[in-house]
Amino acid sequence: MPDNSSPKYPSVLTIGVVGLPEIEPGVNLGHMIAEAAERQGTPISHDDILVVTQKIVSKAEDRVVELSSVEPSEFAAAYAAAAGRDPRLVELVLRESAAIVRMDAERGVLITETHHGFVCANAGIDMSNVPDEESACLLPVDPDASARRIRAEVEKQTGIAPPIIISDTFGRAWRDGHVNFAVGIAGMDPMVDYRGTDDAHGRTMHVTTIAVADELAATAELVTAKAINVPVAIIRGLPYASAVGSTSALLRERSRDMFR
Amino acid sequence: MPDNSSPKYPSVLTIGVVGLPEIEPGVNLGHMIAEAAERQGTPISHDDILVVTQKIVSKAEDRVVELSSVEPSEFAAAYAAAAGRDPRLVELVLRESAAIVRMDAERGVLITETHHGFVCANAGIDMSNVPDEESACLLPVDPDASARRIRAEVEKQTGIAPPIIISDTFGRAWRDGHVNFAVGIAGMDPMVDYRGTDDAHGRTMHVTTIAVADELAATAELVTAKAINVPVAIIRGLPYASAVGSTSALLRERSRDMFR
Repeated sequence: MPDNSSPKYPSVLTIGVVGLPEIEPGVNLGHMIAEAAERQGTPISHDDILVVTQKIVSKAEDRVVELSSVEPSEFAAAYAAAAGRDPRLVELVLRESAAIVRMDAERGVLITETHHGFVCANAGIDMSNVPDEESACLLPVDPDASARRIRAEVEKQTGIAPPIIISDTFGRAWRDGHVNFAVGIAGMDPMVDYRGTDDAHGRTMHVTTIAVADELAATAELVTAKAINVPVAIIRGLPYASAVGSTSALLRERSRDMFR
Repeated sequence: MPDNSSPKYPSVLTIGVVGLPEIEPGVNLGHMIAEAAERQGTPISHDDILVVTQKIVSKAEDRVVELSSVEPSEFAAAYAAAAGRDPRLVELVLRESAAIVRMDAERGVLITETHHGFVCANAGIDMSNVPDEESACLLPVDPDASARRIRAEVEKQTGIAPPIIISDTFGRAWRDGHVNFAVGIAGMDPMVDYRGTDDAHGRTMHVTTIAVADELAATAELVTAKAINVPVAIIRGLPYASAVGSTSALLRERSRDMFR
């Protein structure tokens, strides 16, 4: 006799959203995402979290800069010459940065802390997936605000207000390769705190706080692969703690960081 | 008229595996995982990747150490006294470490590079989820070999040899909270290399190599929550590159690392 009881195991479905058009400045991104999800037969539902890649958010917010409009400083020009890089791009990195964390012309490394507080290479600027070779795509000015806006747009279109995570691909200390991180959040607590909860043996656990928003961003990358047009992921079925949400909870204060 | 064509969007299903018994040293973990997956109605299939949490692997490999058997060195005892920690646990951390990366008694921080090359707090040792308060659970001696063994055990049981990732929860530089990382791999390339591939605009992309094994480990953590008995995740439907696989590809060489 088949067992029709509900499954006792947890599961999460991650769905890539395809079919969004090229994103122009000023578009209603939440509306477009909701329509694309509907069109492909996976409309946004009440147990969804949406992960939106930074690039389309930046394009919608007109954060694509023509390099011809950028006048490099002497400092930028000197580093660019030593590192063999475009001085206008280096200038943009410096403008987007609050502090330089590592700068090594020989290796071509420029790791900075952005005005938002993210520590990453080139202030999160990159030149891939931008139509014009002579332009660069900056991070949104306030990615949490971007996430809130997209959330409101999705709600207006569907009546559902899923948490929104804006993701970007960064390198890490100590490990090679890039992974996706959360750079903007709205509608959920980015952390899950296991401190003080009992483990499987009824003992109080010690230290673990999980950066679930970063894990969701990493999960989304499995379907939003770089070279194809999948700029959004729906993550379906994960319980989460509703909250205003902000990436600031994910960023270690400089005074507590031993690696800056 | 319903559209019965196959969906054009990518999707990945992540399933937690429950119902494994308490793990004793020497058990056939692959066999137990395959049976538990079968029992809950989600038998291992040809498009699966398995993520196994480090704790059950270490238990199966008898890497749980009684603290009463550990004699602290003077160095360990001095740090432990200053940091207010158990000197036997500090001694174990030092034994598991090839180098100390950050040591700060006032903050209670002891970040080391393990003999495997992982940079993490306390050499990856923790005391949660171990039955006896007076014991500590070390990382497997050779987690890639552990992954290969589990893979062979699963294949013997099911006829299917899915890639195996062994995961553990580490902190990060610059960001608060912990996420899951891959510490052992068998059967797949842990990296996806987008360098040289065309992006959505037909341009050659620049730098991105994705540490997909770390993203899979992070994905698994969404269902293998800490406080409940879900030590394994099945990740279903993600295309991957078959390979022998090793975590060494994920570890930046010390000479190329600017944060050690």
